[in-house]
Amino acid sequence: MEKSALQKARAAYQPKLPLGLRGNVSIKEGAPTESVADQAEIKALFPNTYGLPLIEFVHATEARTYAPMNVGVILSGGQAPGGHNVICGIFDELKRQNPESRLYGFLMGPGGLVDHKYKELTAELIDEYRNTGGFDMIGSGRTKLEKVSQYESGLAILRELNIKALVIIGGDDSNTNACALAEYYAAQGAGVQVIGCPKTIDGDLKNEQIETSFGFDTACKTYAEVIGNIQRDANSARKYWHFIKLMGRSASHIALECALQCQPNVTIVSEEVEAKEQSLDDIVSYIAGIVAERAAKGNNFGTVLIPEGLIEFVPAIKKLIKELNDLLATTEAVEATAGKSGEEVVAWVKAHLQADNCATLESLPAGVQKQLALDRDPHGNVQVSLIETEKLLSEMVGKKLAEMAEAKEYVGKFSPLHHFFGYEGRCAAPSNYDADYCYALGTSAAQLIANGKTGYMAIVTNTTAPAAEWVAGGVPITMMLNMEKRSGEMKPVIKKALVDLNGAPFKTFAAQRDKWAAETCYVYPGPIQYFGPTEVCDQCTVTLKLEQAK
Amino acid sequence: MEKSALQKARAAYQPKLPLGLRGNVSIKEGAPTESVADQAEIKALFPNTYGLPLIEFVHATEARTYAPMNVGVILSGGQAPGGHNVICGIFDELKRQNPESRLYGFLMGPGGLVDHKYKELTAELIDEYRNTGGFDMIGSGRTKLEKVSQYESGLAILRELNIKALVIIGGDDSNTNACALAEYYAAQGAGVQVIGCPKTIDGDLKNEQIETSFGFDTACKTYAEVIGNIQRDANSARKYWHFIKLMGRSASHIALECALQCQPNVTIVSEEVEAKEQSLDDIVSYIAGIVAERAAKGNNFGTVLIPEGLIEFVPAIKKLIKELNDLLATTEAVEATAGKSGEEVVAWVKAHLQADNCATLESLPAGVQKQLALDRDPHGNVQVSLIETEKLLSEMVGKKLAEMAEAKEYVGKFSPLHHFFGYEGRCAAPSNYDADYCYALGTSAAQLIANGKTGYMAIVTNTTAPAAEWVAGGVPITMMLNMEKRSGEMKPVIKKALVDLNGAPFKTFAAQRDKWAAETCYVYPGPIQYFGPTEVCDQCTVTLKLEQAK
Repeated sequence: MEKSALQKARAAYQPKLPLGLRGNVSIKEGAPTESVADQAEIKALFPNTYGLPLIEFVHATEARTYAPMNVGVILSGGQAPGGHNVICGIFDELKRQNPESRLYGFLMGPGGLVDHKYKELTAELIDEYRNTGGFDMIGSGRTKLEKVSQYESGLAILRELNIKALVIIGGDDSNTNACALAEYYAAQGAGVQVIGCPKTIDGDLKNEQIETSFGFDTACKTYAEVIGNIQRDANSARKYWHFIKLMGRSASHIALECALQCQPNVTIVSEEVEAKEQSLDDIVSYIAGIVAERAAKGNNFGTVLIPEGLIEFVPAIKKLIKELNDLLATTEAVEATAGKSGEEVVAWVKAHLQADNCATLESLPAGVQKQLALDRDPHGNVQVSLIETEKLLSEMVGKKLAEMAEAKEYVGKFSPLHHFFGYEGRCAAPSNYDADYCYALGTSAAQLIANGKTGYMAIVTNTTAPAAEWVAGGVPITMMLNMEKRSGEMKPVIKKALVDLNGAPFKTFAAQRDKWAAETCYVYPGPIQYFGPTEVCDQCTVTLKLEQAK
Repeated sequence: MEKSALQKARAAYQPKLPLGLRGNVSIKEGAPTESVADQAEIKALFPNTYGLPLIEFVHATEARTYAPMNVGVILSGGQAPGGHNVICGIFDELKRQNPESRLYGFLMGPGGLVDHKYKELTAELIDEYRNTGGFDMIGSGRTKLEKVSQYESGLAILRELNIKALVIIGGDDSNTNACALAEYYAAQGAGVQVIGCPKTIDGDLKNEQIETSFGFDTACKTYAEVIGNIQRDANSARKYWHFIKLMGRSASHIALECALQCQPNVTIVSEEVEAKEQSLDDIVSYIAGIVAERAAKGNNFGTVLIPEGLIEFVPAIKKLIKELNDLLATTEAVEATAGKSGEEVVAWVKAHLQADNCATLESLPAGVQKQLALDRDPHGNVQVSLIETEKLLSEMVGKKLAEMAEAKEYVGKFSPLHHFFGYEGRCAAPSNYDADYCYALGTSAAQLIANGKTGYMAIVTNTTAPAAEWVAGGVPITMMLNMEKRSGEMKPVIKKALVDLNGAPFKTFAAQRDKWAAETCYVYPGPIQYFGPTEVCDQCTVTLKLEQAK
């Protein structure tokens, strides 16, 4: 593998560990726990892993001896910066405990466990990936571990390799599945512990126990770098409006964090749109109003941040999509639209939708109407993620501005440009924060394993303080479960954390957004630095700082 | 202006100056020069500024005194990282020579000179912008200084402010215009010197005297950062082909440099397409062949770099566009297409094009056909830059692969994703290279002024060596001129440097591209570092290193 100068220099970085995880470690257990909701149901579903205590690791004066132990690790779901460092943390602690211990990586996600695809992670291989971005060490995948047949197939290879513990690095769904797997293996007396690790750039896996998911920090900083550069360009050329869509699935955490870092003119927060029951026209009018306000001062430029999931949070569109999914699945629709042109399908759809949904559809640009009527996923559902919301909004804003110009409410030039950032940040080399955080999570996972725990997620808290003061431990995954409807059935799942409109990050943003809209208050964060002064290199996200300051 | 932590830390960076520009400086003049071509014509057009000697600045032991002098500065054309540092270099040297000297910035480009929009650049203001990206200190613009009326209007404000020298920071066209302005003021005995500075991220302003234009280094490193991140993502997810278009106007220098830094699977070089008279189908077949080759090894992922100007270098498309521009300007066309739908206009166009051009048009996806037939700029010309080449190519590659699959020549999955990078890099904070280079260029410009020179461009050479060993001086702009046809007339212009297919950068790329295509040789450059080890922070582009190693 040919390496860049930065990769070579960065390989030598030794992640900073909390004092509690350095050298000899002992374990402090809390009182039994309860799940966040639906305690009786969750307890009944997880008789072997329910009610376990919270765990904290503290420095011990006495050394302990450890028997050799084989461990497996899986990367699950979308890439997030720092995944390799979790694995490095597990590896180093495992080998420190006993050099005879072995670490195996299952390939291309949970599917590797089921299909028995794996490789041993040797010191030589691990050293190639220290402090690097990406999940390419062992790959990742989206296979869901949900069926007993998968659990059993996995158990066969775990037994073959004498693996006694499995670490699953993933988001909320993957950790929910890790919990079910832990319960199953415990119920079977399989002798395999299962430990989870909180991963996702989306930032939506957090709660009372988990401060943040890893990767959110680096991904947001990478997006903020390019957003900042674009803002500097906007402020220099003074003639473009940049509409920037940001990854993050349903939650708007990434858009909000980038807003706090960069102070753009407009940021849409999906959770607020839903709470206020805004229509697409409300959003368009809001943006057009700001464009007009700035134009009146001669500023025909600006930036708009749009969360990826926005469209599904607009109640009217949500309703339209629901009816479209139902309508187009009918035999009548399948027969009536077969072999028809795009225009014909759209016309048929309009003739068969409820009046309000038809009006919503007609309010959208022709291209988006077609996309909604024609582009279906393999389950026949509308592919919302394919809709270029950034273009949809700018096109509608352009139309609104033309109307305003007719009514003498707007004088100016509106030249929009479009961007979508996501793949640019998911595999960036981890910031110091993520490099340290992930390494500590991996070390914690290895300690949970050494202490015989299962059904736990590794956690590290107090991460707004210097790394030495961070607190490492474990939280029973059952503690984070509640019952939610999924595909028509009630299931135990980890509650997804959307943006809290009463939380400090959103309130801080909301208190300043009018000023940011009217004036030009751009901040230019610049690229992630790995070697500079600590006030540049060792900072967490603004979101985390504000949340922890409460 | 609220500043990020990095901006604050970076403000303190003191750019490294060549030894020849530190403290007391004396001037070394070479022999008279000639223009690169058309000597007699250029000499006749520039009687006052032709044949001037090359200039080099060297360290002097004796101090010199300087009378106070007012200087003006203009940023012209697209943003490029380092522009502010050129201005800081001029300012510091001017004030070192005589603290009574003043520097004025003309606002929003050459138009500010003509319209008398300016501000004095004070120490306080200058300090706000040290080592920052963007052109927002005084703004930029695209007004062309070409008319005597503009020259005269400029002269009025220069006289009013007692400005004796003007620095124009711009690309090849702006420097050509600076040369004409220098000649005019010299011919008039106006007593105003004009000095140029080589700016453009596109990298196409370089020749025997100019090693590189500023901004190319930082912009390419910023693009290479995100391309590297995307490649790491591609190699982790192993299921997407990323089609990445890169800014750079006609020249493919940016795409080539990013290829040398990142080693993607495919890079298209427009200059090669033209030289080999390739058709769009040739390019599509080439990419599809690589997709199929990788798919055969189970690698259904990859990266493709596409230069912005590609489409105009495909001879058949160039021919088609030419006929379209002529055809649609006819009264017959205007009348026949008025009020018609997109489909009708395309049909009319097809019925009236020559057979070969019609075939070329029909080979393109329907959306692009419409764009070519309908989207015109204010002069009625096809807007080539609006064509999303990255989507056009991936769509055509998808079709070609479907044919190959039918013919059993391809088995695989092809999921393309699209990116366009340009605005992300034009205003990045300058790398150490650009920060140093620009500061030295500004210092050189101030020295050229102090030595009474006009019609020169400031230059700094030997920049692959440590900054102390760089050589600063000036080159008479007339030396770089030749005669070219522009809008039907022969004009003296600086020759634009396209990618040299016999140069070391292209040859190095060409020698490795088959390996990069078949294997996965991705390099991940990571973000620009400002504080780390010198092998990370103080490197020039691969292009420059290879060119200078010759």
